[in-house]
Amino acid sequence: MSKKPARDRLAEAAFDLFDERGYEQTTVDDITERAGLGRTTFFRYYRSKEDVIFPDHDRLLEQMAERLSATSSEAGMLAVSDAVRVVMVHYLQEGKVARRRYALTSRVPALRDREIVSTARYQRLFSEFIAAWLTDNAGYGRSDSDRDQVALQAEVIAAAMVAAHNHVLRRWLRGQVQDPLPELDKALGRVIKVFAIPGLTPAGDGSSVGATDDTAVIAFRTSTDLDTLISSLKRIVGS
Amino acid sequence: MSKKPARDRLAEAAFDLFDERGYEQTTVDDITERAGLGRTTFFRYYRSKEDVIFPDHDRLLEQMAERLSATSSEAGMLAVSDAVRVVMVHYLQEGKVARRRYALTSRVPALRDREIVSTARYQRLFSEFIAAWLTDNAGYGRSDSDRDQVALQAEVIAAAMVAAHNHVLRRWLRGQVQDPLPELDKALGRVIKVFAIPGLTPAGDGSSVGATDDTAVIAFRTSTDLDTLISSLKRIVGS
Repeated sequence: MSKKPARDRLAEAAFDLFDERGYEQTTVDDITERAGLGRTTFFRYYRSKEDVIFPDHDRLLEQMAERLSATSSEAGMLAVSDAVRVVMVHYLQEGKVARRRYALTSRVPALRDREIVSTARYQRLFSEFIAAWLTDNAGYGRSDSDRDQVALQAEVIAAAMVAAHNHVLRRWLRGQVQDPLPELDKALGRVIKVFAIPGLTPAGDGSSVGATDDTAVIAFRTSTDLDTLISSLKRIVGS
Repeated sequence: MSKKPARDRLAEAAFDLFDERGYEQTTVDDITERAGLGRTTFFRYYRSKEDVIFPDHDRLLEQMAERLSATSSEAGMLAVSDAVRVVMVHYLQEGKVARRRYALTSRVPALRDREIVSTARYQRLFSEFIAAWLTDNAGYGRSDSDRDQVALQAEVIAAAMVAAHNHVLRRWLRGQVQDPLPELDKALGRVIKVFAIPGLTPAGDGSSVGATDDTAVIAFRTSTDLDTLISSLKRIVGS
């Protein structure tokens, strides 16, 4: 009998059976039998058969919320990049399990759908954080119109960052890149640069972002004071 | 007995019952009884109880694919904006039904999840189209590295456009805007401008994009002379 914790034995048995028999054809009883454990043990760790494949989404969401809530106001977009990195690092730590899950979600539409829904929850968390950060740091007021602009901006940026993350993650899951973190930093850095707002902090290792890239983009409100803009410009061009 | 088509009578009965009894508590039999129609009729139009609420996603996806496939190469991003508009126009045509669905998906997590999954399908269609368009029109080659850059870019732009659409759609569903199409054009135009690619065609009525818009975006090579940049800036801010 394996010395692995019951939780991992159940997951391993489940993944093996899903591969052998198919996801739909496998029952919780099949899984406990293969793992040599009882149903009570199964339901102590997992709410359902589906849960065996996605056990960590709630915990991961909590970790991201924690990372974001510990943020000083200056480091807003850096915190979002870090929270996105939390997801990637989680997958890297899972290693083989993450790749098995990817194979399974590619085959079973119901599981792929569940993953899409989980991703939407991360995206919403990011979007709410970015909206709060923009309100406090990017010169928006609290009128209805400003609030709407902030919400739109935040939703678009969060969607772009999640899409960039998912792109790099999929490349790693497919074995197209061995160390995805520098690629992730670059992709997130580019999104942040594209949506550049005065005072925005670049993502991850700032020095690598833009090192091979000689184009800069800045976005600003046309009501912004010219001197403020020029000093932002000098920072970008001078660096 | 109502003279409405059976399909609409079933939908109306379903929405009424979901409001009165709750979604989970309503069965297909309840719906047919209320509509004064049989189960056979129900299953001619809908595959399930859930389907009554989301009957048009497949048809909508087809309409978008058609709109995209009829595109000349120059008009790439214009076609994507138009395809996004197809979704919005569909909701506007639904009118009250769309608002009832919104109220329902806000209350019933399983329905909200299904909507998120449908949205992901649109987003994927857009992303594939944008990737093909970028490959043909934005000076990318066919090396692995170029292909990856194109895919990343396309996924990020598609995510940003869908997020912009959903933001404006939600405002309309909540009654915060009466005619959402100008707002949608403006939001999509901004996304396209932010991701400025040489040769990119602006969305919708190009003249309206930026006219009432108080955000400016400039892109420049970091090797550009600072004085040149500052005089460009003065022109924008001064205008």
